[in-house]
Amino acid sequence: MDIATLKDFATQQRAIRLIDTSRDVDDSLIEQILEVGTHAPSGGNRQIYRFIVIRDPEIKRQLAEIYDTLGAQRYGNPESRTTWAQMPVMIAACSIPGSGPPGAATSASRSATAASVMPAVQNMLLAITALGLGSVLTTLWKEEEATINKLLGLPEGAEIHAILPIGWPDRKYGRNHRKPISEVSFRDRWDNAW
Amino acid sequence: MDIATLKDFATQQRAIRLIDTSRDVDDSLIEQILEVGTHAPSGGNRQIYRFIVIRDPEIKRQLAEIYDTLGAQRYGNPESRTTWAQMPVMIAACSIPGSGPPGAATSASRSATAASVMPAVQNMLLAITALGLGSVLTTLWKEEEATINKLLGLPEGAEIHAILPIGWPDRKYGRNHRKPISEVSFRDRWDNAW
Repeated sequence: MDIATLKDFATQQRAIRLIDTSRDVDDSLIEQILEVGTHAPSGGNRQIYRFIVIRDPEIKRQLAEIYDTLGAQRYGNPESRTTWAQMPVMIAACSIPGSGPPGAATSASRSATAASVMPAVQNMLLAITALGLGSVLTTLWKEEEATINKLLGLPEGAEIHAILPIGWPDRKYGRNHRKPISEVSFRDRWDNAW
Repeated sequence: MDIATLKDFATQQRAIRLIDTSRDVDDSLIEQILEVGTHAPSGGNRQIYRFIVIRDPEIKRQLAEIYDTLGAQRYGNPESRTTWAQMPVMIAACSIPGSGPPGAATSASRSATAASVMPAVQNMLLAITALGLGSVLTTLWKEEEATINKLLGLPEGAEIHAILPIGWPDRKYGRNHRKPISEVSFRDRWDNAW
């Protein structure tokens, strides 16, 4: 793929919080999303990520209860988001127990683990975009992490890094808009203008 | 972009540790990489990431001293990696101070920050692949984080999440290989087979 095609595609990725709840999302599409996810890099190609694909209505209802409450506190306006209880499917992106390098609680270890899961998350979001589906990268539920880990049956030491609610967008969305790179880039040292 | 094109492209991303040190990498290419990076999502579209593009020979030499030592301890065989002292250019992907949600030291806050920087890192790695360049996502240097933060002039509270050494690959690389998705995916709960 040439860089112009990639750049054009990258501008089409949007955070989709309102979905058409009348349409389901086939497993065949989920499998394509997961496959693109696995082709992202992970430390030592160890693939320490695990993906939990959630369709169970009772699990979705309990997740929604947590997320809707946190979302109302943080963002307000519940009409701007489809409740997770009505999401066709969600993917929780996790890491396996003991997946960091030696020193589980260190900053180095935490970064290494996130760096082995989040690239797969971004690849999955790109696949979701390519399929015409919508999603949004969420971490707010982390505030109730212990409850959610229990709900999804995570073993001790495993961690959820992102939850992606997935559905068909409620409408057509335009391109994303970002600051020019000069506003987020430095040369050689922090605060040296690009 | 259709999903088949994206999947084909995703399999072309490789970790490139040996580069052709005789070839430089133009700023025009770095700008394209940074731009694709900025089109990744970040929490609330706040773009809390900052990218330090490193070409200064003395900074590269000092980073190489740290990374070469850690790399020899962790991975051995220095011949399998081009020293950072000879890298044409590197990008350090950082977050700004106070970029997490309330509660800087919590797991929720750390995840939210990583989730706002790492998607841009993966987008940059895809752009590097599209340009025919090579890189590898590194976090091992995190073990000497304080020294590196000082070297790059980071303010208190800012954090480096990944460093990408960038150059032209020493040779042509094949596609990446991963486990089938059934080995890394669960249905509804951890350990429920996909």
